[in-house]
Amino acid sequence: MTRLPTPEDKFSFGLWTVGWEARDQFGDASRPWLDPVESVHQLAKLGASYVTFHDDDVIPFGSDAATRDKILTRFKAALDETGIKVEMITTNTFSHPIFKDGAFTSNDRRVRRYGLRKVVRNVDLAAELGAETFVMWGGREGAEYDSAKDLKAAHDRYREGIDTVAAYIKEKGYGLKIAIEPKPNEPRGDIILPTVGSALAFIAELEHGDIVGVNPETGHEQMAGLNYTSSLAQALWAEKLFHIDLNGQKSIKYDQDLVFGHGDLFSAFGTVDLLVNGFPSGGPRYDGPVHFDYKPSRTEDFTGVWASAAANMSTYILLKERALAFRADPEVQEALQAAKVFELAEPTLAAGETLADLLADPSAFEDLDVDAVAAPGYGFVQLNQLALEHALGAR
Amino acid sequence: MTRLPTPEDKFSFGLWTVGWEARDQFGDASRPWLDPVESVHQLAKLGASYVTFHDDDVIPFGSDAATRDKILTRFKAALDETGIKVEMITTNTFSHPIFKDGAFTSNDRRVRRYGLRKVVRNVDLAAELGAETFVMWGGREGAEYDSAKDLKAAHDRYREGIDTVAAYIKEKGYGLKIAIEPKPNEPRGDIILPTVGSALAFIAELEHGDIVGVNPETGHEQMAGLNYTSSLAQALWAEKLFHIDLNGQKSIKYDQDLVFGHGDLFSAFGTVDLLVNGFPSGGPRYDGPVHFDYKPSRTEDFTGVWASAAANMSTYILLKERALAFRADPEVQEALQAAKVFELAEPTLAAGETLADLLADPSAFEDLDVDAVAAPGYGFVQLNQLALEHALGAR
Amino acid sequence: MTRLPTPEDKFSFGLWTVGWEARDQFGDASRPWLDPVESVHQLAKLGASYVTFHDDDVIPFGSDAATRDKILTRFKAALDETGIKVEMITTNTFSHPIFKDGAFTSNDRRVRRYGLRKVVRNVDLAAELGAETFVMWGGREGAEYDSAKDLKAAHDRYREGIDTVAAYIKEKGYGLKIAIEPKPNEPRGDIILPTVGSALAFIAELEHGDIVGVNPETGHEQMAGLNYTSSLAQALWAEKLFHIDLNGQKSIKYDQDLVFGHGDLFSAFGTVDLLVNGFPSGGPRYDGPVHFDYKPSRTEDFTGVWASAAANMSTYILLKERALAFRADPEVQEALQAAKVFELAEPTLAAGETLADLLADPSAFEDLDVDAVAAPGYGFVQLNQLALEHALGAR
Amino acid sequence: MTRLPTPEDKFSFGLWTVGWEARDQFGDASRPWLDPVESVHQLAKLGASYVTFHDDDVIPFGSDAATRDKILTRFKAALDETGIKVEMITTNTFSHPIFKDGAFTSNDRRVRRYGLRKVVRNVDLAAELGAETFVMWGGREGAEYDSAKDLKAAHDRYREGIDTVAAYIKEKGYGLKIAIEPKPNEPRGDIILPTVGSALAFIAELEHGDIVGVNPETGHEQMAGLNYTSSLAQALWAEKLFHIDLNGQKSIKYDQDLVFGHGDLFSAFGTVDLLVNGFPSGGPRYDGPVHFDYKPSRTEDFTGVWASAAANMSTYILLKERALAFRADPEVQEALQAAKVFELAEPTLAAGETLADLLADPSAFEDLDVDAVAAPGYGFVQLNQLALEHALGAR
Repeated sequence: MTRLPTPEDKFSFGLWTVGWEARDQFGDASRPWLDPVESVHQLAKLGASYVTFHDDDVIPFGSDAATRDKILTRFKAALDETGIKVEMITTNTFSHPIFKDGAFTSNDRRVRRYGLRKVVRNVDLAAELGAETFVMWGGREGAEYDSAKDLKAAHDRYREGIDTVAAYIKEKGYGLKIAIEPKPNEPRGDIILPTVGSALAFIAELEHGDIVGVNPETGHEQMAGLNYTSSLAQALWAEKLFHIDLNGQKSIKYDQDLVFGHGDLFSAFGTVDLLVNGFPSGGPRYDGPVHFDYKPSRTEDFTGVWASAAANMSTYILLKERALAFRADPEVQEALQAAKVFELAEPTLAAGETLADLLADPSAFEDLDVDAVAAPGYGFVQLNQLALEHALGAR
Repeated sequence: MTRLPTPEDKFSFGLWTVGWEARDQFGDASRPWLDPVESVHQLAKLGASYVTFHDDDVIPFGSDAATRDKILTRFKAALDETGIKVEMITTNTFSHPIFKDGAFTSNDRRVRRYGLRKVVRNVDLAAELGAETFVMWGGREGAEYDSAKDLKAAHDRYREGIDTVAAYIKEKGYGLKIAIEPKPNEPRGDIILPTVGSALAFIAELEHGDIVGVNPETGHEQMAGLNYTSSLAQALWAEKLFHIDLNGQKSIKYDQDLVFGHGDLFSAFGTVDLLVNGFPSGGPRYDGPVHFDYKPSRTEDFTGVWASAAANMSTYILLKERALAFRADPEVQEALQAAKVFELAEPTLAAGETLADLLADPSAFEDLDVDAVAAPGYGFVQLNQLALEHALGAR
Repeated sequence: MTRLPTPEDKFSFGLWTVGWEARDQFGDASRPWLDPVESVHQLAKLGASYVTFHDDDVIPFGSDAATRDKILTRFKAALDETGIKVEMITTNTFSHPIFKDGAFTSNDRRVRRYGLRKVVRNVDLAAELGAETFVMWGGREGAEYDSAKDLKAAHDRYREGIDTVAAYIKEKGYGLKIAIEPKPNEPRGDIILPTVGSALAFIAELEHGDIVGVNPETGHEQMAGLNYTSSLAQALWAEKLFHIDLNGQKSIKYDQDLVFGHGDLFSAFGTVDLLVNGFPSGGPRYDGPVHFDYKPSRTEDFTGVWASAAANMSTYILLKERALAFRADPEVQEALQAAKVFELAEPTLAAGETLADLLADPSAFEDLDVDAVAAPGYGFVQLNQLALEHALGAR
Repeated sequence: MTRLPTPEDKFSFGLWTVGWEARDQFGDASRPWLDPVESVHQLAKLGASYVTFHDDDVIPFGSDAATRDKILTRFKAALDETGIKVEMITTNTFSHPIFKDGAFTSNDRRVRRYGLRKVVRNVDLAAELGAETFVMWGGREGAEYDSAKDLKAAHDRYREGIDTVAAYIKEKGYGLKIAIEPKPNEPRGDIILPTVGSALAFIAELEHGDIVGVNPETGHEQMAGLNYTSSLAQALWAEKLFHIDLNGQKSIKYDQDLVFGHGDLFSAFGTVDLLVNGFPSGGPRYDGPVHFDYKPSRTEDFTGVWASAAANMSTYILLKERALAFRADPEVQEALQAAKVFELAEPTLAAGETLADLLADPSAFEDLDVDAVAAPGYGFVQLNQLALEHALGAR
């Protein structure tokens, strides 16, 4: 049965998700334009707490100031009426052909300057609307050909761009955090900062990296064959998981943006388990909005659009119930114990022990019966089967 | 024709490459054990300058001290005779079943302690042999199942392990640098630190990260569909490209370890172009050994083994000639100019310009004719075709 | 809770699955040799009905006739004691280095003749043991390099080999069917007959193709990013689904051979749905053994081995329950109706209608309101969500 | 230097390639509409011999009869003026939303009837324009969700559709051949007939399969990690290679449609080698048009469009020169001999030899020294290095 959301679920949707007109690489739009105001109302009815958007999702590219104001006034009214909040805003620096070689890393300096302006203007809007997170997806920052890009310069310019925006946020006292969204490819052959790891590494080189984190998207990591939950984990460990984009993807191929759970279902269970239960031995937690970045399939009409939006939330709630039951099951706790999962939280060197001590400890090496230590199984398959059964509601 | 190496080429081979007995997941060894001493002599004849190895490649796992000494004495004699140097050493923490759940991140603390001891012992050997780089490939650090590993604890333990080793290197004054080698999967379902990006991000969290960098392997990045040259570039940008592992891989599949160039050939050209020419507008360079980590196909006998070793070097030299000619071609320089590749090195904000200045510059945004800026092509395809023709020796 | 199998489930296991010593590309065996006789007893206890094996799994390669007889006598006794039947036999033409370039398509004719002999000998054994299916996995038939293989000749030889074996089966009146098992790569760079489709196409060119079908393996199709259930469907449509190999695989990477369901879980639900419910509007069904071809993870000891074997069966039974409930749910039937799933079984031309009639029907083209026909959604996302909820036992 | 084509090269381009407006999944058109008449003139100037097109490329969807006639008259004039021929025509059954669930396999019977009408109309046009091949790419035939499609019915309808069209061609005496173009995914999650193999298998089930073959596209096979040249080889072996679509793709990801050679370059060499040299020991050859199905990158303007068109042809010619030299090189012939490549053309059973004879030949099995036969290497790596050096023009 469909699970109904509550505000505690903090569900959030990009307006571009339900609003996608379903124009794709090989076909024309199969749905008409959807008024963002209607989306706000519908999402509110479905139980979402937040919306997010690219500037151009709400205010058409190139709108004059008067039009922009008018649109925003009407949009804010819809927010007020529904109680929906804007938790995140992001900038479209990929649709207009001016960005065909990127924005912050376009080879054309005029484009970089234009892109920076567009982003900064959007930062102001984010602050005005009370957003907490400012996502930056550099979907066009990249290349199809190795010779087309000076990658050292590209990283320099990317850093310059992000640091400039971050400095502006601080200077203005906006309280916004930036979240970089990595993606390996599509629409560019290779995108700069292709994975959560590369984005985290990049952030470590920033001057204002303290307010910059990542916004990992399920399908984007899976497009590189990576484990999304593991990527979330590394981001959490680095205390840089500032936002999430949940959706579904089936194996390595084009970016599918399916409903959450409609891709790799068991991996989705692992993701929810991490989000709601945290790490087995504690550590940093994510407590931000649960944001869905998906596309209702092109085969669907608006009935399907709203049903698909509801499906994201319902599946999340369902997997949450299952993940809570999983960790609460004494048999699972026993299996975790048997698999020594908690033992990994114990430092390798004992409290006060130095490496010199370890080197002097023959029981650790010289006298260790390696075959005896190697022999016992970890029971990982049994543990995984328990996880599977909990995911399937079969215990 | 086969290109013959010179010492300036700094070619280096893992002893496990030519020495691979060709036992694979589905079949028995097709070649007998190869004496490392013979490998040293043969590689010397072929023109290599260095060898590298895992401890167990030279000294069988579990050898007693006397055997170890005897083997090392004989091995060092071969080095002396041939003039071959050991530029890098690495530790086998993946073959023996004691490491079946990893070494530094095994759930079993006894294994972590044992692994740390094995690694530290090998650091001493690296120093003794005059190696400059200490590679750490954590091939068994990972999991098949999300529930099997506390990833927060795993990152903590990985950090503890690497920092302990790095501190030891510093304390001993060894002058060694550590290079972490990422890999997305195989032999584990998901390996911790799966990509160059994730390894760089991890290094940023270390206490002794100053002597820790990365050792990117061609096929490992390509197994995640990532652009190897781009990964090298991010590592260089972060000044963390401490070592390289060149080989060949054909698309996303099992780790093939083909001869360099026998996988994605045009990408190999891009790699060599970056290594020998650096970034178009300058920046950090790699000038370490050119290290091959490949496997002679299981179909080959020793004639094939040595021919394949020579092929790696010959192809590298050939691509080097082509890459030098590519950058020296005035038509290429013109095409780079036309594609604005050098313009990317110009900061987005002019010298002395502040963001406030940019915000006040209507020519950058309000007055910019975006369609006019969007219209011209970058000429990337033509540039790429020039690169292709240079790679093919057809100009 | 663990579901216990009954004989109606027709569960079958390769002896090489539980018997895998867990030697992999990067590591030594983590488990000792397992006596096939013990496997038979254990699998019987767990509720399996059948075992399958490669000749060399039971009779070590190179055994003399006396040893062979002795082993087989003892093995048959175990079958008799337990009531376990041998439903399928397959030949190991990949482990010994003689097969390093393949068996039926080795460039070396002596190897092809030897391989054919080994296979025919095994056909006799299959018949002797009452097997119904003779699987042929040509894991070494392939190449790493395009120039290494004359692919026209390779297909000719493959055909010669299979036709020769099939003719022998017919001549002997054995009643065996051959099932070709496709795989895209690993251990060869590219394997001949890489997918179910290519195997079906090959079979269409055989002289004795009437007794030759396919044995699709979950992970093998998924290693090419293909939908396993769709591949089963094409094989069923061609009435060539002679056997199945179920296991788990997570995305495109090395061949993981995980427990069934431990890979792409929702796809596994789709597979079971097809196997137990057939096509929505009827058609050919698979009613052979449910055969698992998986590997207990290298981290496990024998407790884990047997638990993992049980997990395959339990998950299958669970998904079967869910799949039956899915199709029995009136709301699902309604959604299938709404999605016009049954309408696809109606011929495009009506009974008796010719193309000329269609061409003369303006309502089909000239007068069709294409936008009106295009507008309604198919409700596929809702239908899929129903499937998901049934898979998860949440309705 | 750019190689200039001659008519003997039989180069052919889809009008949708150079005419692509560069609207992609994430961005608006970066180039204006291109008049097909201009494309014909430009391609003629560049040395192409043929063009191909989808009906809607030349005649906008929904044009009335008068408009259609006017457009075609003008288009034919351009063909006459330039001497360009139309060698192939294909039908757009994917752009308009009416086809959102496919054409021949749409769940909606009205759509199937409409699609069949659109295709048949286009067959008439193909015949009228003297085309020899009628390509059918069923890009929308597929599903995102397993439950959305009755795959048995889908294959039935696909067969009904193709057989109806084929019967019509025969009845009309058009002399056209149908070529099915497989693709694994994009725009659908899973496409029916995903690979060359599955299309060949499908054709074997047709009533009028004698005039139906395949049109393999480089990138489509590579999107499944398959070896394009191997797929061509299987199609040739089945005498079903009726047309080819050459382009470039870098590993498994979205459909890139790069210039031929700009993807996997060494694989492109293998492809050209097969096309111009045939199989090493002879067999069926492809001698149809060399057709490019690529997309000029979205970063390019019309200068780049025409340069990219020229690049496809120039690279093909260059690789042809290299492939001819490769096979002509005595050292290569020797290496092929050493690798026993020609020996594969020898039947496994000697002329007149029966299986019974082989079974009675102890030298083939009982007395064979398997280790001695296993020992020698095949020299595949050396052979591949020779191929590489020829590809690179370095011999």
